[in-house]
Amino acid sequence: MASGSQIPANGGASRIVISVDAMGGDRGPAAVVAGLCLSARELPDAHYILHGNDAELAPLIARETGLAGRVSLRHADRVVTMHDKPSQVMRNGDGTSMWSCIDSVKQGEATVAVSCGNTGALMAISMIRLRRLPGINRPAIASMWPSRNPGGFNVMLDMGADVKAEAGDLLQFAMMGASYARNGLNLSRPRVGLLNVGTEEHKGRAELKEAHELLSQAAEAGGFEFVGFVEGSDIPSDRVDVIVTDGFTGNIALKTGEGTAKLISDFLREEFNASVFSKLAALFALGTLRRLQRRMDPRRANGGVFLGLNGTVVKSHGSADATGVAAALRLAYRLAAAGFQDRLAARVASAVRAGQDAAAEQTPLDAAAGTGGGTKE
Amino acid sequence: MASGSQIPANGGASRIVISVDAMGGDRGPAAVVAGLCLSARELPDAHYILHGNDAELAPLIARETGLAGRVSLRHADRVVTMHDKPSQVMRNGDGTSMWSCIDSVKQGEATVAVSCGNTGALMAISMIRLRRLPGINRPAIASMWPSRNPGGFNVMLDMGADVKAEAGDLLQFAMMGASYARNGLNLSRPRVGLLNVGTEEHKGRAELKEAHELLSQAAEAGGFEFVGFVEGSDIPSDRVDVIVTDGFTGNIALKTGEGTAKLISDFLREEFNASVFSKLAALFALGTLRRLQRRMDPRRANGGVFLGLNGTVVKSHGSADATGVAAALRLAYRLAAAGFQDRLAARVASAVRAGQDAAAEQTPLDAAAGTGGGTKE
Repeated sequence: MASGSQIPANGGASRIVISVDAMGGDRGPAAVVAGLCLSARELPDAHYILHGNDAELAPLIARETGLAGRVSLRHADRVVTMHDKPSQVMRNGDGTSMWSCIDSVKQGEATVAVSCGNTGALMAISMIRLRRLPGINRPAIASMWPSRNPGGFNVMLDMGADVKAEAGDLLQFAMMGASYARNGLNLSRPRVGLLNVGTEEHKGRAELKEAHELLSQAAEAGGFEFVGFVEGSDIPSDRVDVIVTDGFTGNIALKTGEGTAKLISDFLREEFNASVFSKLAALFALGTLRRLQRRMDPRRANGGVFLGLNGTVVKSHGSADATGVAAALRLAYRLAAAGFQDRLAARVASAVRAGQDAAAEQTPLDAAAGTGGGTKE
Repeated sequence: MASGSQIPANGGASRIVISVDAMGGDRGPAAVVAGLCLSARELPDAHYILHGNDAELAPLIARETGLAGRVSLRHADRVVTMHDKPSQVMRNGDGTSMWSCIDSVKQGEATVAVSCGNTGALMAISMIRLRRLPGINRPAIASMWPSRNPGGFNVMLDMGADVKAEAGDLLQFAMMGASYARNGLNLSRPRVGLLNVGTEEHKGRAELKEAHELLSQAAEAGGFEFVGFVEGSDIPSDRVDVIVTDGFTGNIALKTGEGTAKLISDFLREEFNASVFSKLAALFALGTLRRLQRRMDPRRANGGVFLGLNGTVVKSHGSADATGVAAALRLAYRLAAAGFQDRLAARVASAVRAGQDAAAEQTPLDAAAGTGGGTKE
């Protein structure tokens, strides 16, 4: 997904329209417009609806000849800041660029929305405007994690849409995560693991033991392979493609991973700066270190995808620069071109139907497993 | 703590006796005896009681002249394996080297116990034989985490003694973690942070908001500074010394951090092996990379400490080699020499007393905060 060469052709059907929130990122609208320029060069049949302050945006756009005829500006007076509480934004968010950005998807003008803004607020607005897919209890945020797999990334969810998840939610995360991996990582039968403190079946919290049961039963119909419990050390491993957990644990794991990578990179820099000899060694090692950096670069995998809503929303990192914004736009384009939203909705609907059918005949546990099948993704 | 130069003198009072489980580690008794040799050289007034199979251990010990007169062998027929369930070991663990190792602390022959075995089983035996300190609801496992602080490490707990923790448990973890940081990291007033998905006070689970309240109130009497919520990325930071969380989250964070460090180190190795030129660069960079490795070496910080029991138990990593075992023994020695167990017990007792006194006059919230003071650690 992170590589430009893997972008699927749009089949010439129609142009892909991406709704973009220009405001609310840490680096302001200039970084978003710079990302738009990179993206427009890379994706010739993409069109962008850009939401934000006209007076700020118009000059930025006018300067870029590559964006001529590719961007529609949509004025919004107000901006959601990183400090706004989701509950406030839910009540008073109308008129912000973020609200307007999501509304373009709701109105059907755009297939997918992208924002660098406040995650909680973006989820709140997405929930209230797009609504959950029928049958989905909790939407989830899915992210890519650098891994040892051939594709270079694993999918993990929930990364923080909600601080808790019951067994049934974890099952829905598994279904949606598998669907995302099929479309985002081109895997026909993704391997799904449930994050726990040990791989033995008797370990962990009660809802995890129950979810283990549900996932085992749902795997075949859900088109995924269930590998059982996985541990924190397995997140980047090649024994799994999709890691399922609640949003609290997912967020802690994500930030712990990022923090560890940052610590090592800082220590490495310090050690290479420690003496004249080590500085010389750094010169020799520069190319190698740059390749490592590129492989671990969080910007390559930029974009958490909100799953479980009537519309696809990509949350870019708040501090994304032009490269990061372009990566989020590439992900949004790829999902739109693949018809991901319809496929996910069909998969969820079929699981819900099967669950209802089964509820009449089966034990409650079987029914909750949503053993739906048939929908080809 | 990890540096040999920081070992406190024992004041010549009496020799320190360490009870050591020779069996149950991934590398078998030979690695433990090799660690004992390193330790005996480094700690001239330490004595070791070694528990395990006589027939295996006696020849290993006899070979090492440095251990002559320093080790008492204690035969145990049975071994707790990594696959044994804690509940089984609790019922049938009598006669294992692990049980015998903990019993030496219970009987007062040794001040502290060290084992490389099954963590869950070790906690179960420690709980049943040593019992919890009066007033402690859940014991916790505290570990050292490489950090940007001058001492090179932060303390984090619970790393997996139990999969859950209520607000009152998190308060006890804060008190015990601060006590451990005072003795283990030589900090007079450790800064304690509560792990959450954001630093704003309205974020996270209900028990975390309640614990935030309790820790704010208990900080002064508990001899620590409460810095509020911290995120996963703050675990190795220099804005905090002690990170408090439940055992599920702590275990996931620990293994995610280890997994990330391993991934980077593997990618680094691959990149340096990619071409003739990068192999040459690796030669130049070798010294620098070795210094980095030493700084991040998990063996340096080997040893999770069980807090909240009537006795101190150090859990070494299951795969510890001689260097790792020696580090765990050094930690055990250091805590024993500092009189850590008595200090911790006094601190907990004073918090419990204050909580009981306060319960009569204050609101339940105040009482639960255990605003005990006075005990000098």
